Amino acid sequence: MALIGKLVICGVGLIGGSFALALREKGEAARVIGVGRSRLSLERARALGIIDEIAADWAAALDGADFVLLAMPVGQTDAVMQAMAPHLRTGTIVSDAGSTKGDVIAAAYRRLHAHLPCVVPAHPIAGAEKSGAEAASAALFHGKRTVLTPLPENAPEAIEKVRAAWRAAGAAVVDMAPHDHDRVFAAVSHLPHLLAFGLVHDLAGRANAELLFSHAASGFRDFTRIAGSHPEMWRDICLANRQALLGELDQYLGELALIRSLLLSGNGERLERLFEEARRARIAWGEADAAK
Amino acid sequence: MALIGKLVICGVGLIGGSFALALREKGEAARVIGVGRSRLSLERARALGIIDEIAADWAAALDGADFVLLAMPVGQTDAVMQAMAPHLRTGTIVSDAGSTKGDVIAAAYRRLHAHLPCVVPAHPIAGAEKSGAEAASAALFHGKRTVLTPLPENAPEAIEKVRAAWRAAGAAVVDMAPHDHDRVFAAVSHLPHLLAFGLVHDLAGRANAELLFSHAASGFRDFTRIAGSHPEMWRDICLANRQALLGELDQYLGELALIRSLLLSGNGERLERLFEEARRARIAWGEADAAK
Repeated sequence: MALIGKLVICGVGLIGGSFALALREKGEAARVIGVGRSRLSLERARALGIIDEIAADWAAALDGADFVLLAMPVGQTDAVMQAMAPHLRTGTIVSDAGSTKGDVIAAAYRRLHAHLPCVVPAHPIAGAEKSGAEAASAALFHGKRTVLTPLPENAPEAIEKVRAAWRAAGAAVVDMAPHDHDRVFAAVSHLPHLLAFGLVHDLAGRANAELLFSHAASGFRDFTRIAGSHPEMWRDICLANRQALLGELDQYLGELALIRSLLLSGNGERLERLFEEARRARIAWGEADAAK
Repeated sequence: MALIGKLVICGVGLIGGSFALALREKGEAARVIGVGRSRLSLERARALGIIDEIAADWAAALDGADFVLLAMPVGQTDAVMQAMAPHLRTGTIVSDAGSTKGDVIAAAYRRLHAHLPCVVPAHPIAGAEKSGAEAASAALFHGKRTVLTPLPENAPEAIEKVRAAWRAAGAAVVDMAPHDHDRVFAAVSHLPHLLAFGLVHDLAGRANAELLFSHAASGFRDFTRIAGSHPEMWRDICLANRQALLGELDQYLGELALIRSLLLSGNGERLERLFEEARRARIAWGEADAAK
C-alpha cells in the first residue's frame, strides 16, 4: 500500500513537483492533487504528468487528503494556512518545503492551532537555479538532506510519516531546532545568495557592463550561479529570515572591513594567511562533502 | 618548423605547465626548459614530461632562448626580471601569464628597459582551484581567452609571435589596454575571489563552524569554489591590483549597504526587483558565455 493515498501539493514548481514525481515513481503516492495561484502552471504540471488533478479550491483539495506539502514561496504561508484551516480534517499531515522555519512555524501557530499535532515543518536542501514544474525531477532529492524541525505539539506518528515520505523521495533526514535551522541557513545559504545577487546587480548597472561581462570566466560563473535563482522565492526567504540574515550580513561586513584594511595597508602576510585558512577549510569541506 | 625552438618557463605550475604541454603537443616548442625557485617542483615537472631540462641559472636558461614565459606568482616579477636582464639576448621574446598587468609592465620598464620591443604582457583567462604541475593539462586553454596588453614599444613581430603561441595553445587572443585590463579583472575576477575567501574564512572561524559546514550544499559549493585557489598567487594579485580592487570592493560595499537597508526596512518590492535584475543579467550572460 502506498505511504500516501491522496497527496496535495501547493505550489507545483521545482520542489513540489520533484517531491510528487519522486513519490509517484516509488509508488508511495496513489493520487496527486495540485493547488496554486497560477492555473497555467498547474495545467503545465498536469500535462507533464506531475499531478493527476487540479483542485478547484481548498475544500476539494483537502477532502480525504492524507498529506499536504506546502511548496509555494514562504511569503504566502500565512495566507495559505488561513485558507486551508476551515477545511483541514483531523489526521491530515501538513508539511512544507520552506527554506526558513521560524516564519512558517509562527504562521502554523496562528492559523492551524487546532491542527498542530499534524503540522511537521521541513526543509529539503536541494536548490537549483532553475525553477518551475519543467525543472522538476524525481531524482532531485537523491543524496540530498531534508531538515525536519518538529514542534513540541507534533504527534510522533506524524513526524515519522513526514520522515518516511522524504526518505522515500531519496533524501537523508536530519532533525534540528527551528532557531538553529534559521541561523545555520542564513550563514551557508541565504547570505551567499544575497552576495551573488548583489555582485551581478552591481556589475549589470555599470556603464561598461557589457565589457565586464565579456571577460567574466569560470570563477565568475560558479560564484554567481545562484544569482539566477527565483527572485520572489528569495525575496520571501530574505524577509522571513531577516533577523538572522542581517546578523550574518553584518558579521560578513566585518570580515570585509578586515580584508579592506589589509589591502589598504598592503599587509601581504596577513592577507595570505587569511586566504590560506579559507583554502584549507574549503578543501576540507569539499572532501567531506564529496564523501557524503 | 616549430614556432618556438627553445621555450623557457619560469614557474612550472598549472599555467606554465599547461602552456608547455599544449605547445609540445602541437609540435610548436622543440625544447622546454624550466626555471623556478623550487627544485622539487621542477623535478616533478620534468618527471611528468612537462619540461625537458631544469636550467641551472638564468644565464643557462636564456642562452639561445626564443621565448620566455613568466608564470610564477606576480609578486616575483620584479626580482625575476632583474635576475634575467643581464642574460637576455636581443630578439628573445618575453611574455607572462600574470593576472594583473600594471605591475608587470611597471617592472618591465624598470628592469627590462633595453628589451621592451620584445616584452609582450599577456593574461590567459584560465583558472582552476587546483595548482601545481600535477594539475597542468594540454587542454587547459582550449576555448579560453588570452588577453594581450601590448606596449607602445613592442615590435609588431614580437606581438604576433606571442599571439601565435597562445593560439597554438588553444586560446582565443584579444587585445586590451593594460589599465582597462586591470579594472575589468578587478571586477569580474579579483573581487569575487576576495569575497569567497572572506566568506569561508568568516565561517571557518566560528565556534559552530562544524555545524555550519555540515549543512552547506550545492549553492555554497559553487559560490566558494574559488576560495580553494592558491593563497600566494592571490595575495600577489590583490596587492598588485590594489587600487582597482579597493575601488571595486568599495563599490560592492555600497551595493551591500543598499541591500542591507532594503532588508532592514523590509522593502520586499525593491529587494525582489534587485534580485530580478541580477537574475536577468546572470541568465543573459550565461547564455552568451555558453554560446562562445
